[in-house]
Amino acid sequence: MEALETVFEVQYALDTFYFLVCGALVMWMAAGFAMLEAGLVRAKNTTEILTKNFSLFAIASIMYMVVGYQFMYDGGFLLAGITGSGVEAGFEYEAEATFAPSADFFFQVVFVATAMSIVSGAVAERMKLWAFLAFAVIMTGFIYPIQGAWSWGGGFLDELGYADFAGSGIVHMAGAAAALAGVIVLGPRKGKYGKDGQINAIPGANLPLATLGTFILWMGWFGFNGGSVLATAASDTANEVAVVFMNTNLAASGGAMTALVLSRLLFKKADLTMILNGALAGLVSITAGPEWSTPFVATLIGGVGGILVVLSIVALDKLKIDDPVGAISVHGSAGIWGILAVTFGGASISAQLIGIGAIFGWVFLTSLIVWFILKAIMGIRVSEEQEYEGVDLSECGMEAYPEFTTSGK
Amino acid sequence: MEALETVFEVQYALDTFYFLVCGALVMWMAAGFAMLEAGLVRAKNTTEILTKNFSLFAIASIMYMVVGYQFMYDGGFLLAGITGSGVEAGFEYEAEATFAPSADFFFQVVFVATAMSIVSGAVAERMKLWAFLAFAVIMTGFIYPIQGAWSWGGGFLDELGYADFAGSGIVHMAGAAAALAGVIVLGPRKGKYGKDGQINAIPGANLPLATLGTFILWMGWFGFNGGSVLATAASDTANEVAVVFMNTNLAASGGAMTALVLSRLLFKKADLTMILNGALAGLVSITAGPEWSTPFVATLIGGVGGILVVLSIVALDKLKIDDPVGAISVHGSAGIWGILAVTFGGASISAQLIGIGAIFGWVFLTSLIVWFILKAIMGIRVSEEQEYEGVDLSECGMEAYPEFTTSGK
Amino acid sequence: MEALETVFEVQYALDTFYFLVCGALVMWMAAGFAMLEAGLVRAKNTTEILTKNFSLFAIASIMYMVVGYQFMYDGGFLLAGITGSGVEAGFEYEAEATFAPSADFFFQVVFVATAMSIVSGAVAERMKLWAFLAFAVIMTGFIYPIQGAWSWGGGFLDELGYADFAGSGIVHMAGAAAALAGVIVLGPRKGKYGKDGQINAIPGANLPLATLGTFILWMGWFGFNGGSVLATAASDTANEVAVVFMNTNLAASGGAMTALVLSRLLFKKADLTMILNGALAGLVSITAGPEWSTPFVATLIGGVGGILVVLSIVALDKLKIDDPVGAISVHGSAGIWGILAVTFGGASISAQLIGIGAIFGWVFLTSLIVWFILKAIMGIRVSEEQEYEGVDLSECGMEAYPEFTTSGK
Repeated sequence: MEALETVFEVQYALDTFYFLVCGALVMWMAAGFAMLEAGLVRAKNTTEILTKNFSLFAIASIMYMVVGYQFMYDGGFLLAGITGSGVEAGFEYEAEATFAPSADFFFQVVFVATAMSIVSGAVAERMKLWAFLAFAVIMTGFIYPIQGAWSWGGGFLDELGYADFAGSGIVHMAGAAAALAGVIVLGPRKGKYGKDGQINAIPGANLPLATLGTFILWMGWFGFNGGSVLATAASDTANEVAVVFMNTNLAASGGAMTALVLSRLLFKKADLTMILNGALAGLVSITAGPEWSTPFVATLIGGVGGILVVLSIVALDKLKIDDPVGAISVHGSAGIWGILAVTFGGASISAQLIGIGAIFGWVFLTSLIVWFILKAIMGIRVSEEQEYEGVDLSECGMEAYPEFTTSGK
Repeated sequence: MEALETVFEVQYALDTFYFLVCGALVMWMAAGFAMLEAGLVRAKNTTEILTKNFSLFAIASIMYMVVGYQFMYDGGFLLAGITGSGVEAGFEYEAEATFAPSADFFFQVVFVATAMSIVSGAVAERMKLWAFLAFAVIMTGFIYPIQGAWSWGGGFLDELGYADFAGSGIVHMAGAAAALAGVIVLGPRKGKYGKDGQINAIPGANLPLATLGTFILWMGWFGFNGGSVLATAASDTANEVAVVFMNTNLAASGGAMTALVLSRLLFKKADLTMILNGALAGLVSITAGPEWSTPFVATLIGGVGGILVVLSIVALDKLKIDDPVGAISVHGSAGIWGILAVTFGGASISAQLIGIGAIFGWVFLTSLIVWFILKAIMGIRVSEEQEYEGVDLSECGMEAYPEFTTSGK
Repeated sequence: MEALETVFEVQYALDTFYFLVCGALVMWMAAGFAMLEAGLVRAKNTTEILTKNFSLFAIASIMYMVVGYQFMYDGGFLLAGITGSGVEAGFEYEAEATFAPSADFFFQVVFVATAMSIVSGAVAERMKLWAFLAFAVIMTGFIYPIQGAWSWGGGFLDELGYADFAGSGIVHMAGAAAALAGVIVLGPRKGKYGKDGQINAIPGANLPLATLGTFILWMGWFGFNGGSVLATAASDTANEVAVVFMNTNLAASGGAMTALVLSRLLFKKADLTMILNGALAGLVSITAGPEWSTPFVATLIGGVGGILVVLSIVALDKLKIDDPVGAISVHGSAGIWGILAVTFGGASISAQLIGIGAIFGWVFLTSLIVWFILKAIMGIRVSEEQEYEGVDLSECGMEAYPEFTTSGK
């Protein structure tokens, strides 16, 4: 008897530790987004995108503690944070719980930041810093957690059978929807689309940084998907976590490979930025269902994501939707594909479609309203002169690479 | 009976694995310090600061094995390393031990390197490489472990009730004290302080690198603080580790946010380097007591750290104490605040003050003596011409970015 | 009875989780190789080396799933991936297994990528991208796994008693042998060796990146060596994993220190690239036997590796074998030393020599054949003009740092 109780304690401890390790890996994804986006913008806008990415993680952590977790799980952190009952609950051994409550909060909070990180890339090089940070407060405290409650919080999407294992829709498509709304209100960068219809490439300033960011995201995704099993301390959950790691890796590989081949066919070159986005699209694609498929099928699901992201980036440019880093295509187009791909694993097609409609609709519309309100109150776009000079100097007062660029422009 | 014994083995194994994972995260902080400092110095001094950071980690590892661990815990590694009893002890199952002895050594050794990493930033851009490495030998083999023995080794500070969970004082303030002594002996960089009292900003060459370094440190800090619970394989320790992860993350977030707002108020800009230092100050602040507070209080403790670091950086510049990366403010000023903040959690104010005095006094004075001795023997400052040309060429014979800067200067 | 069964489940779960964490760390080494190599080539060849490193990881993952794992362990993934039996096996609790089968696949697959990453650095700045990718398909699907079967798959080297704990030979020397064959077929870079015998240094463009890459590799190596214990959930395996972490860290430190001192003696400067390669050589050296030695001996083994790598880099240059990043010296010369060093721990000298001969011979000869076939079919070297202009534009159509270099060359 005593032995069995002690075993249960060890299971509790292992599940908690697993959650914390996975959470630390997801936190690390914030660095990945920051490096990816900093590498894909021009030098003159680099300090500002770093400031956005760094600050949004802090905002997400605080807002989710103060209100978001409450909205999403009714976890009571709103009062708990202030009254102290939260941390007491954290120390208390709950017989029913299979892991420490604080570990759950830690794991969930880094997901919020991921959703928000998606936005910063799409609106890069022209949005006002403080308007972005204000949006981050609303997104991480309210818009994201309210829709999160529909599925992971046990709401109507959960009851309908909407299947979204680690959040192709709840996290990634949600971030892309908020980004799309922002880009529409904001408009494209000056000089991106010519008057006679031509699309001008605006190369990123630092591709090693972008590659590093993608590797970081790939690594962090093991925590993102692997941790979403929510338990690992028994043989069946351990097997499931292992399958998730394996499939996540293969889906990223599949996406990178199809994007490599397709970009070679379309552009005659091995376009590195497409390959990076292909791997990320593969990761987004498998996120809704990394646990049910064979390794071969996981590779294919990721591979389709890699094709979709290349086509989506080309298509959005034709629609003059200017997304400097391809975030809407990676997280939106591949996210929708990922949600639908779970139907091959047995999910209800109608539940998946309703999930897409509900999440996208909610996040897109509320974001659109918030962006318009911010535009009215404080303006969301920097002046033409600031955009030309680069937002680093106007928003942050310092260049990212003061010695490398002759003019900083 | 057999089951219970096996459970104890699994607990031993889980605690050991947890220690190793946390240790690997703290080792990773060495990369964080290297990137942070390399990003905040000028291009012409980048190779050298990388060389210092990389080499000091190796020196710390070896010196702590040969003498430091012995001093700090009487662990017997001095002879053990050479006679072979150490590794045998490592393999032997000790009924009383709750984790592998080698895992403990591994975890402790990466802490030593952290303390030393703090120094390299403050003395950047003007100190001789070999004088620095000589100091690293003394610091990691003797100065740090001797004061570490006072608290973590069960010495007089431990008996007094000095509370310093993961080392706001033992590691961070100690590093800052050594750095301050070095900066005072060394003097400011040429051109930093004008004759008529003005303070000249010397911008860092690569802010994405500095941001990456800060993200790495933030991530590594989960191991630093989380591992300092020293056990995780039962429900109470698992809960405590989870609380530590959660609070560490929130304190960093709080520090980043207050530094963002304060730098906006003081300088009218979102000063990225202040935000990064604010997050680090938040982390240092919570390090002395990440386990007792509610999440909300942890955010506040970190937030106060973020304010202090901005004020401290401004104040040190007025005192003409030239610290190119703000290390003394981040680890010293916020470190002292962190030690004092534990009094809100019940620590004795007198014990905390005695701890601050003893650790700071010991490290500052012994460091001062060592710096003076090194100055007399080999000199610690490069020549004016070398400082103007950059220490990369004179100390390392190679530029960090030979193709990016027109003159390398 | 029930308790004991549950304990075995927890052990299974802990071993699986340990495998996955170590595997994620080894996957992270792919980022390390990418950054190291991108930092050590010139700016004009950076996008291409990033593309190679990123793509080879994806190729390795897919090829090893489709055929390699089958060859190496007869694990049946070839059919399993397509028929679906693989993932079912992954979910099934096998009474004899001590960890999830998918976790084993995940851990092994990242090793394959490591072997292949070694090649990309040695052939940098002059090899055609698609020839390299074609070689990666053959190497990761056939050449590596076939020799892997000889030892880790239970083949004749295993029966002979060839001891290679985590793969100084099976992974590192194998990668170096393939690289050496490639470099011989490819020839040196234009301008590297003058007509009158002088050797021209071609400095890397971004040393912070190279340093970051080395730190990443150092960190990832804890997973590489630590995971190779293959179990951690009992006291003896836990102790062994802890010893491996400790010794791995010390060997890297030893290698860095001897390379620092030797480069100071030989070149009068603290040559950062030599120090980085010294640490890596220390890591390679300890990889064949990180579990048997005392910490002091581990430091010495690494230290000898650090000396060998400096001498080997100098010697290869005299032989006009042009290896831009020193990969053949790090993984080949130090790899051989590492295999031989295990004889101090009791391994049979003849078995070790046969292992070196068999692995090196197989990989070198088959690689040579494949390189020649690729040369005949598609050519493996870019044109002189492309080499002068940089392979970034010709192979990838984009510069890595378009704003930092005045000409991109």
